[in-house]
Amino acid sequence: MAWGAKRRGLAAQVVGADRDPASLRHALGAGMIDAVADAADAVQDADLVVLAVPVGELTGLADELAPRLDPRTVVTDVGSVKRSVVERVGWGIPRFVGGHPMAGGEQSGAAAATPDLFEGATCLLTPTERTDPTALQAVERLWHALGATVVRMDAAVHDEIVAAVSHLPHLAACALVNTVAGSDPSGRTLPFAAGGFRDMTRIAASSPELWRDICLMNRAPLLDALARYTTAVVRLRDLIEKGDGPGLLDEFARARDVRRSLREGAR
Amino acid sequence: MAWGAKRRGLAAQVVGADRDPASLRHALGAGMIDAVADAADAVQDADLVVLAVPVGELTGLADELAPRLDPRTVVTDVGSVKRSVVERVGWGIPRFVGGHPMAGGEQSGAAAATPDLFEGATCLLTPTERTDPTALQAVERLWHALGATVVRMDAAVHDEIVAAVSHLPHLAACALVNTVAGSDPSGRTLPFAAGGFRDMTRIAASSPELWRDICLMNRAPLLDALARYTTAVVRLRDLIEKGDGPGLLDEFARARDVRRSLREGAR
Repeated sequence: MAWGAKRRGLAAQVVGADRDPASLRHALGAGMIDAVADAADAVQDADLVVLAVPVGELTGLADELAPRLDPRTVVTDVGSVKRSVVERVGWGIPRFVGGHPMAGGEQSGAAAATPDLFEGATCLLTPTERTDPTALQAVERLWHALGATVVRMDAAVHDEIVAAVSHLPHLAACALVNTVAGSDPSGRTLPFAAGGFRDMTRIAASSPELWRDICLMNRAPLLDALARYTTAVVRLRDLIEKGDGPGLLDEFARARDVRRSLREGAR
Repeated sequence: MAWGAKRRGLAAQVVGADRDPASLRHALGAGMIDAVADAADAVQDADLVVLAVPVGELTGLADELAPRLDPRTVVTDVGSVKRSVVERVGWGIPRFVGGHPMAGGEQSGAAAATPDLFEGATCLLTPTERTDPTALQAVERLWHALGATVVRMDAAVHDEIVAAVSHLPHLAACALVNTVAGSDPSGRTLPFAAGGFRDMTRIAASSPELWRDICLMNRAPLLDALARYTTAVVRLRDLIEKGDGPGLLDEFARARDVRRSLREGAR
Protein backbone atom coordinates (compact mmCIF):
# COMPACT_ATOMS: atom_id res chain seq x y z
CA MET A 1 0.00 0.00 0.00
CA ALA A 2 2.89 2.33 0.89
CA TRP A 3 4.71 1.42 -2.30
CA GLY A 4 1.58 1.86 -4.42
CA ALA A 5 1.02 5.32 -2.88
CA LYS A 6 4.62 6.36 -3.55
CA ARG A 7 4.61 5.05 -7.12
CA ARG A 8 1.42 6.94 -7.88
CA GLY A 9 2.57 10.15 -6.17
CA LEU A 10 -0.30 10.05 -3.69
CA ALA A 11 1.74 11.31 -0.72
CA ALA A 12 4.51 13.90 -0.26
CA GLN A 13 6.21 11.54 2.18
CA VAL A 14 5.57 7.91 3.13
CA VAL A 15 6.96 6.93 6.55
CA GLY A 16 7.17 3.25 7.48
CA ALA A 17 7.07 1.67 10.93
CA ASP A 18 7.32 -2.10 11.47
CA ARG A 19 8.18 -4.54 14.24
CA ASP A 20 10.54 -6.27 11.79
CA PRO A 21 13.66 -4.14 11.13
CA ALA A 22 14.72 -6.32 8.16
CA SER A 23 11.39 -5.70 6.44
CA LEU A 24 11.77 -1.94 7.01
CA ARG A 25 15.32 -1.95 5.62
CA HIS A 26 14.11 -3.84 2.57
CA ALA A 27 11.26 -1.36 2.03
CA LEU A 28 13.56 1.65 2.39
CA GLY A 29 16.26 0.17 0.19
CA ALA A 30 13.77 -0.70 -2.56
CA GLY A 31 12.26 2.79 -2.45
CA MET A 32 8.87 1.58 -1.24
CA ILE A 33 8.94 4.19 1.57
CA ASP A 34 10.76 7.54 2.07
CA ALA A 35 11.69 7.19 5.74
CA VAL A 36 11.57 4.92 8.77
CA ALA A 37 10.42 5.82 12.29
CA ASP A 38 8.92 4.37 15.46
CA ALA A 39 5.14 4.14 15.14
CA ALA A 40 4.67 6.85 17.80
CA ASP A 41 6.89 9.27 15.84
CA ALA A 42 5.69 8.19 12.40
CA VAL A 43 2.10 9.22 13.10
CA GLN A 44 2.94 12.76 14.26
CA ASP A 45 1.94 15.38 11.68
CA ALA A 46 0.68 12.61 9.37
CA ASP A 47 -2.31 13.38 7.12
CA LEU A 48 -3.20 9.71 6.96
CA VAL A 49 -2.18 6.70 9.04
CA VAL A 50 -2.69 3.11 7.85
CA LEU A 51 -2.62 0.50 10.61
CA ALA A 52 -1.59 -2.86 9.12
CA VAL A 53 -1.03 -5.34 11.94
CA PRO A 54 -2.70 -8.67 12.87
CA VAL A 55 -6.26 -7.77 13.90
CA GLY A 56 -5.69 -8.93 17.48
CA GLU A 57 -3.07 -6.20 17.95
CA LEU A 58 -5.00 -3.42 16.25
CA THR A 59 -6.95 -1.96 19.16
CA GLY A 60 -3.89 -2.03 21.44
CA LEU A 61 -1.85 -0.19 18.81
CA ALA A 62 -4.65 2.32 18.24
CA ASP A 63 -4.89 3.00 22.00
CA GLU A 64 -1.14 3.55 22.11
CA LEU A 65 -1.11 5.92 19.16
CA ALA A 66 -4.33 7.88 19.89
CA PRO A 67 -2.68 10.46 22.24
CA ARG A 68 -0.01 11.20 19.59
CA LEU A 69 -2.47 11.89 16.78
CA ASP A 70 -3.38 15.34 15.54
CA PRO A 71 -7.21 15.69 15.56
CA ARG A 72 -7.18 16.24 11.76
CA THR A 73 -5.26 12.98 11.06
CA VAL A 74 -7.30 10.34 9.25
CA VAL A 75 -6.67 6.77 10.44
CA THR A 76 -7.66 3.57 8.65
CA ASP A 77 -6.77 -0.11 8.84
CA VAL A 78 -6.65 -3.17 6.57
CA GLY A 79 -7.83 -5.87 8.99
CA SER A 80 -10.03 -8.83 8.05
CA VAL A 81 -12.47 -8.39 10.98
CA LYS A 82 -14.35 -5.14 11.34
CA ARG A 83 -17.17 -5.03 13.91
CA SER A 84 -15.10 -5.18 17.09
CA VAL A 85 -12.45 -2.92 15.52
CA VAL A 86 -14.74 -0.09 14.43
CA GLU A 87 -16.55 -0.20 17.78
CA ARG A 88 -13.38 -0.03 19.85
CA VAL A 89 -11.10 2.16 17.73
CA GLY A 90 -13.87 4.51 16.60
CA TRP A 91 -14.37 5.82 20.16
CA GLY A 92 -10.71 6.70 20.70
CA ILE A 93 -9.97 8.08 17.22
CA PRO A 94 -12.84 10.17 15.79
CA ARG A 95 -11.44 10.21 12.26
CA PHE A 96 -11.00 6.40 12.07
CA VAL A 97 -12.39 4.53 9.03
CA GLY A 98 -12.45 0.73 9.08
CA GLY A 99 -11.15 -0.83 5.85
CA HIS A 100 -10.51 -4.27 4.37
CA PRO A 101 -8.89 -4.60 0.94
CA MET A 102 -9.78 -8.02 -0.52
CA ALA A 103 -6.37 -8.82 -1.99
CA GLY A 104 -3.10 -10.41 -0.97
CA GLY A 105 -1.41 -13.75 -0.94
CA GLU A 106 -0.03 -16.20 1.58
CA GLN A 107 3.27 -14.30 1.92
CA SER A 108 3.96 -11.26 4.09
CA GLY A 109 6.63 -8.61 4.66
CA ALA A 110 8.17 -6.01 2.35
CA ALA A 111 10.02 -8.65 0.31
CA ALA A 112 6.65 -10.03 -0.86
CA ALA A 113 5.25 -6.58 -1.74
CA THR A 114 4.00 -5.48 -5.15
CA PRO A 115 2.93 -1.89 -5.92
CA ASP A 116 -0.08 -2.96 -8.02
CA LEU A 117 -1.61 -5.40 -5.54
CA PHE A 118 -4.87 -3.45 -5.35
CA GLU A 119 -5.41 -2.80 -9.07
CA GLY A 120 -8.81 -4.34 -9.83
CA ALA A 121 -9.36 -5.44 -6.23
CA THR A 122 -12.36 -4.63 -4.05
CA CYS A 123 -11.87 -2.68 -0.81
CA LEU A 124 -14.63 -2.86 1.78
CA LEU A 125 -15.04 0.20 4.05
CA THR A 126 -17.21 -0.04 7.16
CA PRO A 127 -18.14 3.46 8.38
CA THR A 128 -20.38 3.82 11.43
CA GLU A 129 -22.85 6.61 12.24
CA ARG A 130 -19.97 8.31 14.10
CA THR A 131 -17.52 8.23 11.18
CA ASP A 132 -16.43 11.66 9.96
CA PRO A 133 -17.65 11.98 6.33
CA THR A 134 -14.52 13.84 5.18
CA ALA A 135 -12.31 11.10 6.68
CA LEU A 136 -14.37 8.48 4.84
CA GLN A 137 -13.97 10.41 1.59
CA ALA A 138 -10.20 10.68 2.08
CA VAL A 139 -9.83 6.92 2.58
CA GLU A 140 -12.10 6.23 -0.35
CA ARG A 141 -10.03 8.52 -2.59
CA LEU A 142 -6.85 6.70 -1.57
CA TRP A 143 -8.25 3.28 -2.49
CA HIS A 144 -9.58 4.56 -5.80
CA ALA A 145 -6.15 6.01 -6.57
CA LEU A 146 -4.60 2.59 -5.81
CA GLY A 147 -6.89 1.05 -8.42
CA ALA A 148 -9.47 -0.58 -6.13
CA THR A 149 -13.24 -0.53 -6.24
CA VAL A 150 -14.68 0.64 -2.91
CA VAL A 151 -17.81 -0.84 -1.38
CA ARG A 152 -19.26 0.61 1.85
CA MET A 153 -21.07 -1.78 4.15
CA ASP A 154 -22.09 -2.31 7.74
CA ALA A 155 -19.29 -3.83 9.82
CA ALA A 156 -21.46 -6.73 11.04
CA VAL A 157 -22.49 -7.59 7.46
CA HIS A 158 -18.82 -7.41 6.46
CA ASP A 159 -17.89 -9.90 9.16
CA GLU A 160 -20.54 -12.39 8.01
CA ILE A 161 -19.51 -12.11 4.36
CA VAL A 162 -15.79 -12.58 4.97
CA ALA A 163 -16.49 -15.43 7.41
CA ALA A 164 -18.03 -17.29 4.44
CA VAL A 165 -15.79 -16.32 1.51
CA SER A 166 -12.44 -15.87 3.25
CA HIS A 167 -12.18 -17.21 6.80
CA LEU A 168 -14.09 -20.46 6.24
CA PRO A 169 -12.00 -21.35 3.13
CA HIS A 170 -8.86 -20.86 5.18
CA LEU A 171 -10.11 -23.24 7.87
CA ALA A 172 -11.16 -25.77 5.22
CA ALA A 173 -7.69 -25.61 3.64
CA CYS A 174 -5.97 -25.93 7.00
CA ALA A 175 -8.12 -28.95 7.92
CA LEU A 176 -7.36 -30.50 4.53
CA VAL A 177 -3.59 -30.19 4.94
CA ASN A 178 -3.71 -31.50 8.51
CA THR A 179 -5.98 -34.41 7.48
CA VAL A 180 -3.58 -35.56 4.80
CA ALA A 181 -0.44 -34.94 6.86
CA GLY A 182 -1.95 -36.49 9.99
CA SER A 183 -2.74 -39.79 8.29
CA ASP A 184 0.54 -39.95 6.42
CA PRO A 185 3.13 -41.04 8.99
CA SER A 186 5.19 -42.88 6.37
CA GLY A 187 5.11 -39.89 4.01
CA ARG A 188 3.70 -41.92 1.13
CA THR A 189 0.70 -39.68 0.40
CA LEU A 190 1.84 -36.03 0.32
CA PRO A 191 4.37 -36.48 -2.52
CA PHE A 192 1.39 -37.22 -4.79
CA ALA A 193 -0.45 -33.99 -4.01
CA ALA A 194 -1.09 -32.56 -7.48
CA GLY A 195 -2.30 -29.19 -8.76
CA GLY A 196 -5.81 -29.34 -7.31
CA PHE A 197 -4.56 -30.03 -3.79
CA ARG A 198 -1.87 -27.36 -4.07
CA ASP A 199 -4.32 -24.74 -5.38
CA MET A 200 -6.77 -25.53 -2.62
CA THR A 201 -4.28 -25.41 0.20
CA ARG A 202 -2.02 -22.50 -0.84
CA ILE A 203 -3.70 -20.14 1.65
CA ALA A 204 -2.90 -22.58 4.46
CA ALA A 205 0.72 -21.40 4.16
CA SER A 206 -0.12 -17.90 5.45
CA SER A 207 0.66 -16.45 8.88
CA PRO A 208 -0.66 -18.58 11.80
CA GLU A 209 -0.77 -15.53 14.13
CA LEU A 210 -2.91 -13.57 11.67
CA TRP A 211 -5.39 -16.42 11.35
CA ARG A 212 -5.53 -17.13 15.06
CA ASP A 213 -6.49 -13.48 15.63
CA ILE A 214 -9.10 -13.56 12.86
CA CYS A 215 -10.71 -16.71 14.27
CA LEU A 216 -10.84 -15.33 17.80
CA MET A 217 -12.20 -11.94 16.70
CA ASN A 218 -14.76 -13.16 14.16
CA ARG A 219 -15.92 -16.03 16.36
CA ALA A 220 -19.73 -15.92 16.04
CA PRO A 221 -20.02 -15.47 12.23
CA LEU A 222 -17.28 -18.07 11.75
CA LEU A 223 -19.02 -20.64 13.99
CA ASP A 224 -22.19 -20.10 11.92
CA ALA A 225 -20.28 -20.61 8.66
CA LEU A 226 -18.54 -23.72 10.05
CA ALA A 227 -21.86 -25.22 11.12
CA ARG A 228 -23.26 -24.78 7.60
CA TYR A 229 -20.06 -26.16 6.08
CA THR A 230 -20.06 -29.25 8.29
CA THR A 231 -23.66 -29.89 7.23
CA ALA A 232 -22.65 -29.66 3.55
CA VAL A 233 -19.71 -32.06 4.05
CA VAL A 234 -21.87 -34.55 5.96
CA ARG A 235 -24.53 -34.38 3.21
CA LEU A 236 -21.90 -35.41 0.63
CA ARG A 237 -20.67 -38.12 2.98
CA ASP A 238 -24.19 -39.54 3.40
CA LEU A 239 -24.79 -39.56 -0.38
CA ILE A 240 -21.54 -41.48 -0.89
CA GLU A 241 -22.37 -43.93 1.89
CA LYS A 242 -25.81 -44.60 0.37
CA GLY A 243 -24.33 -44.80 -3.14
CA ASP A 244 -26.78 -42.10 -4.24
CA GLY A 245 -25.54 -41.23 -7.76
CA PRO A 246 -28.34 -38.79 -8.70
CA GLY A 247 -27.95 -36.98 -5.35
CA LEU A 248 -24.18 -36.61 -5.86
CA LEU A 249 -24.73 -35.41 -9.43
CA ASP A 250 -27.10 -32.70 -8.11
CA GLU A 251 -24.58 -31.47 -5.55
CA PHE A 252 -21.68 -31.40 -8.01
CA ALA A 253 -23.75 -29.74 -10.76
CA ARG A 254 -24.91 -27.04 -8.34
CA ALA A 255 -21.33 -26.35 -7.22
CA ARG A 256 -20.10 -26.27 -10.82
CA ASP A 257 -22.79 -23.80 -11.90
CA VAL A 258 -22.12 -21.46 -8.98
CA ARG A 259 -18.37 -21.70 -9.44
CA ARG A 260 -18.57 -20.97 -13.17
CA SER A 261 -20.67 -17.88 -12.46
CA LEU A 262 -17.81 -16.27 -10.50
CA ARG A 263 -15.74 -13.86 -12.51
CA GLU A 264 -12.23 -15.25 -12.90
CA GLY A 265 -10.53 -11.97 -13.65
CA ALA A 266 -10.94 -9.98 -10.45
CA ARG A 267 -8.82 -10.63 -7.39
CA MET B 1 -2.42 -37.49 -24.61
CA ALA B 2 -3.17 -38.14 -28.30
CA TRP B 3 -1.84 -34.72 -29.26
CA GLY B 4 1.27 -35.15 -27.14
CA ALA B 5 1.96 -38.53 -28.78
CA LYS B 6 1.52 -37.05 -32.26
CA ARG B 7 3.69 -34.01 -31.54
CA ARG B 8 6.48 -36.24 -30.24
CA GLY B 9 6.19 -38.75 -33.10
CA LEU B 10 5.39 -41.59 -30.72
CA ALA B 11 2.84 -43.26 -33.01
CA ALA B 12 2.60 -43.83 -36.77
CA GLN B 13 -1.11 -43.10 -36.56
CA VAL B 14 -3.34 -41.75 -33.79
CA VAL B 15 -7.03 -42.63 -34.20
CA GLY B 16 -9.59 -40.82 -32.04
CA ALA B 17 -13.01 -42.04 -30.88
CA ASP B 18 -15.32 -39.90 -28.73
CA ARG B 19 -19.00 -39.68 -27.81
CA ASP B 20 -18.85 -35.97 -28.64
CA PRO B 21 -18.60 -35.42 -32.43
CA ALA B 22 -17.75 -31.72 -31.99
CA SER B 23 -14.76 -32.58 -29.83
CA LEU B 24 -13.57 -35.11 -32.44
CA ARG B 25 -13.93 -32.56 -35.25
CA HIS B 26 -11.96 -30.05 -33.21
CA ALA B 27 -9.20 -32.61 -32.54
CA LEU B 28 -8.97 -33.63 -36.19
CA GLY B 29 -9.08 -30.04 -37.45
CA ALA B 30 -6.34 -28.96 -35.04
CA GLY B 31 -4.13 -31.92 -36.02
CA MET B 32 -4.29 -33.51 -32.57
CA ILE B 33 -5.25 -36.86 -34.17
CA ASP B 34 -4.80 -38.40 -37.64
CA ALA B 35 -8.19 -40.04 -38.07
CA VAL B 36 -11.58 -40.58 -36.50
CA ALA B 37 -13.44 -43.88 -36.05
CA ASP B 38 -16.01 -45.66 -33.89
CA ALA B 39 -14.34 -47.09 -30.81
CA ALA B 40 -14.91 -50.68 -32.02
CA ASP B 41 -13.14 -49.93 -35.32
CA ALA B 42 -10.47 -47.66 -33.81
CA VAL B 43 -9.07 -50.43 -31.61
CA GLN B 44 -8.64 -52.96 -34.44
CA ASP B 45 -4.98 -53.44 -35.34
CA ALA B 46 -3.97 -50.87 -32.70
CA ASP B 47 -0.67 -51.35 -30.90
CA LEU B 48 -1.92 -49.37 -27.92
CA VAL B 49 -5.40 -48.34 -26.80
CA VAL B 50 -5.97 -45.60 -24.20
CA LEU B 51 -9.40 -45.67 -22.56
CA ALA B 52 -10.25 -42.16 -21.34
CA VAL B 53 -13.87 -42.11 -20.15
CA PRO B 54 -15.52 -41.40 -16.77
CA VAL B 55 -14.45 -44.26 -14.50
CA GLY B 56 -18.04 -45.51 -14.14
CA GLU B 57 -18.15 -46.29 -17.86
CA LEU B 58 -14.72 -47.85 -18.11
CA THR B 59 -15.49 -51.50 -17.42
CA GLY B 60 -18.55 -51.43 -19.70
CA LEU B 61 -16.45 -49.99 -22.53
CA ALA B 62 -13.66 -52.52 -21.90
CA ASP B 63 -16.18 -55.41 -22.03
CA GLU B 64 -17.53 -54.05 -25.31
CA LEU B 65 -14.10 -53.67 -26.89
CA ALA B 66 -12.43 -56.85 -25.57
CA PRO B 67 -13.70 -59.16 -28.38
CA ARG B 68 -12.35 -56.72 -31.01
CA LEU B 69 -8.84 -56.54 -29.60
CA ASP B 70 -5.84 -58.31 -31.03
CA PRO B 71 -4.15 -60.36 -28.27
CA ARG B 72 -0.95 -58.32 -28.71
CA THR B 73 -2.72 -54.94 -28.22
CA VAL B 74 -1.75 -53.14 -25.03
CA VAL B 75 -4.63 -51.37 -23.28
CA THR B 76 -4.36 -48.72 -20.58
CA ASP B 77 -6.63 -46.14 -18.98
CA VAL B 78 -6.36 -42.76 -17.24
CA GLY B 79 -9.08 -43.15 -14.59
CA SER B 80 -8.86 -41.76 -11.04
CA VAL B 81 -9.95 -44.99 -9.35
CA LYS B 82 -7.91 -48.14 -9.85
CA ARG B 83 -8.72 -51.13 -7.66
CA SER B 84 -12.12 -52.04 -9.09
CA VAL B 85 -10.90 -51.22 -12.61
CA VAL B 86 -7.77 -53.38 -12.61
CA GLU B 87 -9.71 -56.27 -11.03
CA ARG B 88 -12.52 -56.19 -13.57
CA VAL B 89 -10.73 -55.14 -16.76
CA GLY B 90 -7.61 -57.19 -16.08
CA TRP B 91 -9.57 -60.47 -16.39
CA GLY B 92 -11.03 -59.62 -19.79
CA ILE B 93 -7.96 -57.96 -21.31
CA PRO B 94 -4.70 -59.73 -20.39
CA ARG B 95 -2.48 -56.88 -21.63
CA PHE B 96 -4.35 -54.20 -19.61
CA VAL B 97 -2.30 -51.80 -17.45
CA GLY B 98 -4.13 -49.48 -15.04
CA GLY B 99 -2.87 -45.88 -15.19
CA HIS B 100 -3.61 -42.53 -13.60
CA PRO B 101 -1.74 -39.41 -14.75
CA MET B 102 -1.86 -36.78 -11.98
CA ALA B 103 -2.49 -33.78 -14.22
CA GLY B 104 -5.36 -31.87 -15.74
CA GLY B 105 -7.69 -29.03 -14.97
CA GLU B 106 -11.38 -28.42 -14.47
CA GLN B 107 -12.05 -28.25 -18.23
CA SER B 108 -12.57 -31.17 -20.61
CA GLY B 109 -12.83 -31.91 -24.33
CA ALA B 110 -10.40 -31.37 -27.20
CA ALA B 111 -10.84 -27.58 -27.07
CA ALA B 112 -9.21 -27.59 -23.61
CA ALA B 113 -6.31 -29.86 -24.68
CA THR B 114 -2.62 -28.98 -24.47
CA PRO B 115 0.13 -31.25 -25.88
CA ASP B 116 2.46 -30.69 -22.92
CA LEU B 117 -0.02 -31.45 -20.14
CA PHE B 118 2.08 -34.31 -18.80
CA GLU B 119 5.52 -32.65 -18.86
CA GLY B 120 6.74 -32.83 -15.28
CA ALA B 121 3.62 -34.65 -14.08
CA THR B 122 3.53 -37.93 -12.15
CA CYS B 123 1.75 -40.92 -13.66
CA LEU B 124 0.75 -43.73 -11.31
CA LEU B 125 0.61 -47.24 -12.82
CA THR B 126 -1.06 -50.04 -10.90
CA PRO B 127 0.03 -53.43 -12.31
CA THR B 128 -1.29 -56.62 -10.69
CA GLU B 129 0.40 -60.02 -10.44
CA ARG B 130 -1.39 -60.89 -13.71
CA THR B 131 -0.13 -57.85 -15.66
CA ASP B 132 2.02 -58.71 -18.69
CA PRO B 133 5.49 -57.22 -18.02
CA THR B 134 6.01 -56.20 -21.66
CA ALA B 135 2.65 -54.38 -21.65
CA LEU B 136 3.66 -52.57 -18.47
CA GLN B 137 6.96 -51.55 -20.06
CA ALA B 138 5.19 -50.26 -23.18
CA VAL B 139 2.84 -48.05 -21.14
CA GLU B 140 5.73 -46.86 -18.98
CA ARG B 141 7.74 -45.89 -22.10
CA LEU B 142 4.78 -43.92 -23.44
CA TRP B 143 4.44 -41.88 -20.24
CA HIS B 144 8.18 -41.24 -20.08
CA ALA B 145 8.07 -40.04 -23.68
CA LEU B 146 5.21 -37.67 -22.77
CA GLY B 147 7.44 -36.14 -20.08
CA ALA B 148 5.93 -37.79 -17.00
CA THR B 149 7.57 -39.52 -14.06
CA VAL B 150 6.11 -43.01 -13.58
CA VAL B 151 5.47 -44.52 -10.15
CA ARG B 152 4.22 -48.11 -9.84
CA MET B 153 2.02 -48.92 -6.88
CA ASP B 154 -0.62 -51.31 -5.65
CA ALA B 155 -4.11 -50.34 -6.86
CA ALA B 156 -5.57 -50.31 -3.32
CA VAL B 157 -2.77 -48.05 -2.08
CA HIS B 158 -3.38 -45.80 -5.09
CA ASP B 159 -7.05 -45.49 -4.22
CA GLU B 160 -6.28 -44.48 -0.62
CA ILE B 161 -3.71 -41.89 -1.70
CA VAL B 162 -5.92 -40.22 -4.30
CA ALA B 163 -8.89 -40.29 -1.93
CA ALA B 164 -6.83 -38.03 0.36
CA VAL B 165 -4.99 -35.74 -2.08
CA SER B 166 -7.50 -35.52 -4.93
CA HIS B 167 -11.02 -36.78 -4.20
CA LEU B 168 -11.34 -35.32 -0.69
CA PRO B 169 -10.19 -31.83 -1.85
CA HIS B 170 -12.83 -31.93 -4.57
CA LEU B 171 -15.55 -32.72 -2.03
CA ALA B 172 -14.24 -29.99 0.30
CA ALA B 173 -14.34 -27.46 -2.56
CA CYS B 174 -17.83 -28.55 -3.61
CA ALA B 175 -19.11 -28.26 -0.03
CA LEU B 176 -17.50 -24.82 0.27
CA VAL B 177 -19.20 -23.49 -2.87
CA ASN B 178 -22.57 -24.94 -1.85
CA THR B 179 -22.22 -23.59 1.70
CA VAL B 180 -21.63 -20.05 0.48
CA ALA B 181 -24.23 -20.22 -2.31
CA GLY B 182 -26.79 -21.91 -0.09
CA SER B 183 -26.72 -19.19 2.56
CA ASP B 184 -26.65 -16.34 0.04
CA PRO B 185 -30.24 -16.01 -1.18
CA SER B 186 -29.87 -12.26 -1.73
CA GLY B 187 -26.59 -12.72 -3.63
CA ARG B 188 -24.72 -10.35 -1.34
CA THR B 189 -21.88 -12.70 -0.41
CA LEU B 190 -20.56 -14.39 -3.56
CA PRO B 191 -19.57 -11.14 -5.33
CA PHE B 192 -16.95 -10.70 -2.62
CA ALA B 193 -15.30 -14.06 -3.17
CA ALA B 194 -11.64 -13.08 -3.67
CA GLY B 195 -8.55 -14.95 -4.88
CA GLY B 196 -8.33 -17.42 -2.00
CA PHE B 197 -11.90 -18.61 -2.45
CA ARG B 198 -11.52 -18.82 -6.20
CA ASP B 199 -8.26 -20.78 -5.99
CA MET B 200 -9.80 -23.18 -3.49
CA THR B 201 -12.95 -23.85 -5.45
CA ARG B 202 -11.68 -23.92 -9.04
CA ILE B 203 -11.82 -27.74 -9.13
CA ALA B 204 -15.51 -27.59 -8.16
CA ALA B 205 -16.17 -26.41 -11.74
CA SER B 206 -15.18 -29.78 -13.24
CA SER B 207 -17.49 -32.46 -14.65
CA PRO B 208 -20.24 -33.58 -12.22
CA GLU B 209 -20.57 -36.98 -13.96
CA LEU B 210 -16.86 -37.66 -13.57
CA TRP B 211 -16.95 -36.88 -9.86
CA ARG B 212 -20.13 -38.82 -9.22
CA ASP B 213 -18.45 -41.89 -10.71
CA ILE B 214 -15.28 -41.36 -8.71
CA CYS B 215 -17.22 -41.04 -5.44
CA LEU B 216 -19.26 -44.18 -6.11
CA MET B 217 -16.23 -46.23 -7.18
CA ASN B 218 -13.80 -45.10 -4.49
CA ARG B 219 -16.40 -45.24 -1.75
CA ALA B 220 -14.55 -46.91 1.15
CA PRO B 221 -11.25 -44.95 1.00
CA LEU B 222 -13.22 -41.74 0.46
CA LEU B 223 -15.49 -42.37 3.47
CA ASP B 224 -12.34 -42.92 5.56
CA ALA B 225 -10.80 -39.67 4.31
CA LEU B 226 -14.07 -37.77 4.91
CA ALA B 227 -14.27 -39.08 8.48
CA ARG B 228 -10.74 -37.82 9.19
CA TYR B 229 -11.50 -34.50 7.51
CA THR B 230 -14.69 -33.96 9.50
CA THR B 231 -12.71 -34.61 12.68
CA ALA B 232 -10.14 -31.98 11.66
CA VAL B 233 -12.86 -29.40 10.87
CA VAL B 234 -14.65 -30.07 14.15
CA ARG B 235 -11.36 -29.73 16.04
CA LEU B 236 -10.87 -26.23 14.57
CA ARG B 237 -14.51 -25.43 15.36
CA ASP B 238 -14.08 -26.47 19.01
CA LEU B 239 -10.90 -24.40 19.39
CA ILE B 240 -12.72 -21.34 18.03
CA GLU B 241 -15.72 -21.94 20.31
CA LYS B 242 -13.46 -22.23 23.35
CA GLY B 243 -11.41 -19.21 22.22
CA ASP B 244 -8.27 -21.36 22.43
CA GLY B 245 -5.62 -19.11 20.83
CA PRO B 246 -2.58 -21.38 21.46
CA GLY B 247 -4.50 -24.39 20.11
CA LEU B 248 -5.45 -22.52 16.92
CA LEU B 249 -1.88 -21.30 16.51
CA ASP B 250 -0.67 -24.94 16.71
CA GLU B 251 -3.12 -26.11 14.04
CA PHE B 252 -2.32 -23.24 11.67
CA ALA B 253 1.44 -23.54 12.18
CA ARG B 254 1.31 -27.28 11.47
CA ALA B 255 -0.69 -26.71 8.26
CA ARG B 256 1.67 -23.93 7.17
CA ASP B 257 4.77 -26.06 7.70
CA VAL B 258 3.33 -29.03 5.79
CA ARG B 259 2.05 -26.81 2.99
CA ARG B 260 5.39 -25.03 2.61
CA SER B 261 7.15 -28.38 2.33
CA LEU B 262 5.22 -29.24 -0.86
CA ARG B 263 7.08 -28.49 -4.05
CA GLU B 264 5.29 -25.68 -5.91
CA GLY B 265 6.79 -26.44 -9.30
CA ALA B 266 5.37 -29.83 -10.19
CA ARG B 267 1.81 -30.34 -11.33
